[in-house]
Amino acid sequence: MSELYSLSGLELSNLISKGEIKAKELAQSYIKRIEKFDKDVKAWAFFDPNFILKKAEECDDFKNIGRPTGPLHGLPIAIKDIFGTDEMTTECGTVLRKKKYTKGDSTVVSLLKSSGAYVMGKTVTTEFAYFDAGKTTNPHDYTRTPGGSSSGSAASVASFMTPIAIGSQTNGSIIRPASYCGVLGYKPSYGLISRNGVLKQSFLLDHVGVFARSVEDLAFISQEIIKRDVEDKSTIPFASGDFLKIAQEDPPFDPRFIFFKTDMWKNLDKETTKVFEKFIKGLGSNVEIHDTPSYFKDIMRYHKIIHETDMAYSFSDYYKNSKNKLGKELVKAIERGFKYKSKDYVEAVENRDYFYKLFSEVFNDYHGILSPSSTGVAPKGLNSTGSPEFSTYWTFLGMPSISLPLLTGSNNLPLGIQLIGEKFDDARLMRTANWLMKKKKNA
Amino acid sequence: MSELYSLSGLELSNLISKGEIKAKELAQSYIKRIEKFDKDVKAWAFFDPNFILKKAEECDDFKNIGRPTGPLHGLPIAIKDIFGTDEMTTECGTVLRKKKYTKGDSTVVSLLKSSGAYVMGKTVTTEFAYFDAGKTTNPHDYTRTPGGSSSGSAASVASFMTPIAIGSQTNGSIIRPASYCGVLGYKPSYGLISRNGVLKQSFLLDHVGVFARSVEDLAFISQEIIKRDVEDKSTIPFASGDFLKIAQEDPPFDPRFIFFKTDMWKNLDKETTKVFEKFIKGLGSNVEIHDTPSYFKDIMRYHKIIHETDMAYSFSDYYKNSKNKLGKELVKAIERGFKYKSKDYVEAVENRDYFYKLFSEVFNDYHGILSPSSTGVAPKGLNSTGSPEFSTYWTFLGMPSISLPLLTGSNNLPLGIQLIGEKFDDARLMRTANWLMKKKKNA
Repeated sequence: MSELYSLSGLELSNLISKGEIKAKELAQSYIKRIEKFDKDVKAWAFFDPNFILKKAEECDDFKNIGRPTGPLHGLPIAIKDIFGTDEMTTECGTVLRKKKYTKGDSTVVSLLKSSGAYVMGKTVTTEFAYFDAGKTTNPHDYTRTPGGSSSGSAASVASFMTPIAIGSQTNGSIIRPASYCGVLGYKPSYGLISRNGVLKQSFLLDHVGVFARSVEDLAFISQEIIKRDVEDKSTIPFASGDFLKIAQEDPPFDPRFIFFKTDMWKNLDKETTKVFEKFIKGLGSNVEIHDTPSYFKDIMRYHKIIHETDMAYSFSDYYKNSKNKLGKELVKAIERGFKYKSKDYVEAVENRDYFYKLFSEVFNDYHGILSPSSTGVAPKGLNSTGSPEFSTYWTFLGMPSISLPLLTGSNNLPLGIQLIGEKFDDARLMRTANWLMKKKKNA
Repeated sequence: MSELYSLSGLELSNLISKGEIKAKELAQSYIKRIEKFDKDVKAWAFFDPNFILKKAEECDDFKNIGRPTGPLHGLPIAIKDIFGTDEMTTECGTVLRKKKYTKGDSTVVSLLKSSGAYVMGKTVTTEFAYFDAGKTTNPHDYTRTPGGSSSGSAASVASFMTPIAIGSQTNGSIIRPASYCGVLGYKPSYGLISRNGVLKQSFLLDHVGVFARSVEDLAFISQEIIKRDVEDKSTIPFASGDFLKIAQEDPPFDPRFIFFKTDMWKNLDKETTKVFEKFIKGLGSNVEIHDTPSYFKDIMRYHKIIHETDMAYSFSDYYKNSKNKLGKELVKAIERGFKYKSKDYVEAVENRDYFYKLFSEVFNDYHGILSPSSTGVAPKGLNSTGSPEFSTYWTFLGMPSISLPLLTGSNNLPLGIQLIGEKFDDARLMRTANWLMKKKKNA
């Protein structure tokens, strides 16, 4: 039998459910792994082995006395350190919140617990989930960035320190670290997962998402945390109960894709370009390369106006009272945010819906959109977390996307391919993603 | 039998449905009325007696051949001239749209037609539904304003030229003219009636509403036009089918009210103050006078930021190309709209929900809020349409409100009392409104 830490969340929960392993054994396996690797990877903002063992024992006790258990029973989940959690600090990557607690669990954490999981620890985020980097390194090369802002979530999954991690994305904070770290990252349609109890950058752009090492695991966890929440009025009623089942099905016929090179294609280096070109070729007649709609150009600007305005609003007290303790990228963004005109903000908001309305008709003919997840493999250095530019369109439009670790780029490092779907068609997106993963396996 | 024009919409549709009157007779009754009074009231922007007669005849033919008819069959409805309509111009009160048509019916008009009604004509609006007045006068005193922006809709109902009229409100454009003209005006909860095909000032503030001469008629029409519309993403699924039935029921016990004098109370003249004080007294122990929450003060400013920014966005082409043909109030508002900061806009938007959340707990103890509908009776003169200040809170918060013609102010002119309800509790609001109307009748 493989080491426990190497199994998927789905496999592990089956083993626990059947009584073939104890939650405590599993916890021990991860603790060993973390103690071995985290001195280099530095994925954790809060990690307490005794806490984990206690929670795992509670799970085992609960099961031993014959109580009914949820689908995630005994599964440890890593949580980005911007999500409120009982019994653990939530520091948001800033010195201003050192040792600070939230009032309670965020909705996502509370839903995970209701399904039987426990919080394994808090993973490192960039400062306030913006661009100023945390301490985490890339598990594939400790001298490189893991990407951000969900740095620790991506790195902890990549280094088998957790089966599954929760992250968030306001620009490219899930897709890019997933690409750099060689794991799967899923940013759902806007409105599926509650942001209640999570650090807020932007009401219109913030998304909660998931990291895992298989499509099944993304689906398995997502179906537990997708739920309308009156505390987050962006959330809609949505049936996610069959995500896993649908993700495991074969599509009735081979999916057809559009590949968008976009204006950012010129920012890829030669080697990365080649890798993507080869991937496209491998899809044969299933893929067509299309020009990105001309109006997409405005999205980069619109996203920036909304994002920076909303941060200027959300972080105005921190800025007023403690500007000198904020990272320089964040200060610059907030100060730009103070300057935009309200009319330009409204223009950006109105076009968010309008552009999607114009654009969504591509799904009459295609099942998914493909695009790079990042401009290349993880860059050298730990001060920058790389560029989110290949995610901006889809975050702005609220469309679901998954980064799939299908490619290998320069220096033998992982490189993600991004699959984007129709809004609220997340279940089919997962099925299509799985189709791509299986195709690669069989290739 | 009373003259047909004096009956309510509900009575008329019953008579038509039973075959006791013809739609054509009814049309003739209104045409006669309009031809007699509209030279003074000037409520109509589009009025064509032949068109009306043709539509009425079609209704009669339809019924004669035994086809099933809708609840509004044969009922003529007046439509504010900012709603798109087939076969009629939609001029929005501006010289820039003289003789211009829209592509088709607005959703509301289309729903009215599906229920069997026909469009009687288009009623005068202020320019682009803002403050620059149209030609309409107050039916109670032709030298006074009917209020605005739904000037013609209020005046046409008040002068018995139509049973029911559709209007809109972004600040006080239904409640104030209803008060001045002595009719009922209903502004529903934000999200109940589609604005698709209607001149847009502000996505967040625009509301469609109804004028009538009884609560029953408000309910009767509203239940036909409240419908989720994918073309207006503010609209929610909402069951309105029982509005009329509920409006006609007696409350299980006497409703309890809060009366909000608000900071604007000082703007009432002595006589108006007395009239309201007497009304409050008449409610005895059913009403308590409360201070308006301190945070409501910000609403006036927030409303202005959102309203003027959104107009600057919505009307930017008109402003750029034809500034000299726009009214001076509108130009000033647009120019202020260009200057706001995006962060202040976001602050206003965020507090809209936050304030409502704080405030809505009053409905644990009270069934409705009472407040003046206007600062007094209709002011002298036709250049200004009066002040919307007593509506601003409720429009901003998206709460439903009804102006009830319960009072008589100076010069024996009508004066409205505004009843405001919990968001999405519109049916009970109508029942409570009816309770107040019946109480007055029996007093």
